Amino acid sequence: MSNSGFDQWATAHRARVEAALTRWTPAAELTSGRLLEAMRYSALGGGKRLRALLAYASAEAIGASAELADHAAVAVEMIHTYSLIHDDMPCMDNDDLRRGKPTSHVVFGDATAMLAGDALQPLAFAVLLGAPATATGVVAATHELAEASGAFGMAGGQAIDLANVGKPMTLATLEEMHAMKTGAMFEAAIVIPALLAEEDESTLTALATYAQKIGMTFQVVDDVLDATADSATLGKTAGKDAANDKPTFVSLMGIEAARQYAQRLTDEAIHALPVHLNTQRLTDLARLMATRNA
Amino acid sequence: MSNSGFDQWATAHRARVEAALTRWTPAAELTSGRLLEAMRYSALGGGKRLRALLAYASAEAIGASAELADHAAVAVEMIHTYSLIHDDMPCMDNDDLRRGKPTSHVVFGDATAMLAGDALQPLAFAVLLGAPATATGVVAATHELAEASGAFGMAGGQAIDLANVGKPMTLATLEEMHAMKTGAMFEAAIVIPALLAEEDESTLTALATYAQKIGMTFQVVDDVLDATADSATLGKTAGKDAANDKPTFVSLMGIEAARQYAQRLTDEAIHALPVHLNTQRLTDLARLMATRNA
Repeated sequence: MSNSGFDQWATAHRARVEAALTRWTPAAELTSGRLLEAMRYSALGGGKRLRALLAYASAEAIGASAELADHAAVAVEMIHTYSLIHDDMPCMDNDDLRRGKPTSHVVFGDATAMLAGDALQPLAFAVLLGAPATATGVVAATHELAEASGAFGMAGGQAIDLANVGKPMTLATLEEMHAMKTGAMFEAAIVIPALLAEEDESTLTALATYAQKIGMTFQVVDDVLDATADSATLGKTAGKDAANDKPTFVSLMGIEAARQYAQRLTDEAIHALPVHLNTQRLTDLARLMATRNA
Repeated sequence: MSNSGFDQWATAHRARVEAALTRWTPAAELTSGRLLEAMRYSALGGGKRLRALLAYASAEAIGASAELADHAAVAVEMIHTYSLIHDDMPCMDNDDLRRGKPTSHVVFGDATAMLAGDALQPLAFAVLLGAPATATGVVAATHELAEASGAFGMAGGQAIDLANVGKPMTLATLEEMHAMKTGAMFEAAIVIPALLAEEDESTLTALATYAQKIGMTFQVVDDVLDATADSATLGKTAGKDAANDKPTFVSLMGIEAARQYAQRLTDEAIHALPVHLNTQRLTDLARLMATRNA
């Protein structure tokens, strides 16, 4: 993409979240084996940082500070990182490549990988609880993080995913699963800065609608890429969905219809944004979700 | 124990935390496999509920409401439950008996067990964030929960434990490990009601000291029981420490010296309690830590 300096903005903010993650992921190591090393191994140095960029873009849209956005961006990236570590483990997807590197359990062993994921969760909450905002805003934002990552959000979506491998799934169930598994944390990334800043209900609702649309776009495109791209480009193992007989938008709709669906969702997401906000980066990110190739 | 109606108080408050856990551990099941069932299986119907009793006793000591205490008690029991589920998994302690029942991964499989633990963490935070207290109190209490359960608390202690199986360990390192692994969450159980109620610094410090002493007592007695009791009495597999060549207070001090140490810590814990608080139940619980036989 080349519009309006988005690439420079994204690069700068990827560096910003990397610095904030480095600052807030402790490096000191006592007698604790390699726990902190494992936490940093997975949290730092990689990934598209889409959730962090969404948090920064949301903060810009409402005129909140970059410092406030740091806490939101780091919190959602830590939750995302823990979920990747656990998802990749042998008892789940048993994947050995992630972000172009060996997965955590391959490097540190299953027990330390599980603990590193376990310990990234409360660290995410601690970081968000330290956000420069009112106590009321912090409580609302932290509650959103808890709901989005839990049994009726990300973890619940993973459970549906797990329970349905190899089973027929309707498009409605597939969308419900992804709304929980991926969508809830996308929504958290976008809504948390607004909750911290105590934005009004109509702004929160509009941002949530935007988030739900781009979250679904992300997943549709993910399925398309899994079916069409190679592992080197993706930085993770490609073709796993078909190999695992997982229901996907591609298996239910076909590749072309899935691509068109992603475009329609993107248009709806951009349309949902309130005109009184500074929505340039949110608009850029919506387009990126639909056009990304990794 | 037969002093001052403690047994009735403990029974009533075990029932109280069970009811609150039942209320706040969702039962509705969508297409999510058995995730919620697995969360309830481990969270409900068992355990000594020591952490919950500590939260209720702390709330009584400072004159806070039982409703406030419910949120603290449920939050710490949910974190404790998640840690038990993950600890028992094959990649950790590989235990198949807990609270007299088959462990989660035995019943639900490794993937669902891991997810159930993962989902209990944010649920604990959500429950605490909903406590009937000021936003400032809620933020402070939730931050304590995050710190106590994370890399410098419970999860970090487990990592030290894991890294030191079969290695020689000094008494100082053993104490540091247990202060993190068990002590931090005991301290959270006791301090969280006081943080919610915005108690003053000297009260918080005194309660933290009490908590650290009884936390260590608990672990010393745990080691004694593992070496001397049978599995049926404990409701979990006995003799695992020696079988796994784990350093313990018993292996480092011997059984009699460990028992005396537990008694001294108990006296110090009770001595640390501020005289202006209503400390009857905290005193009872300190004695229970030292004299329990399961």
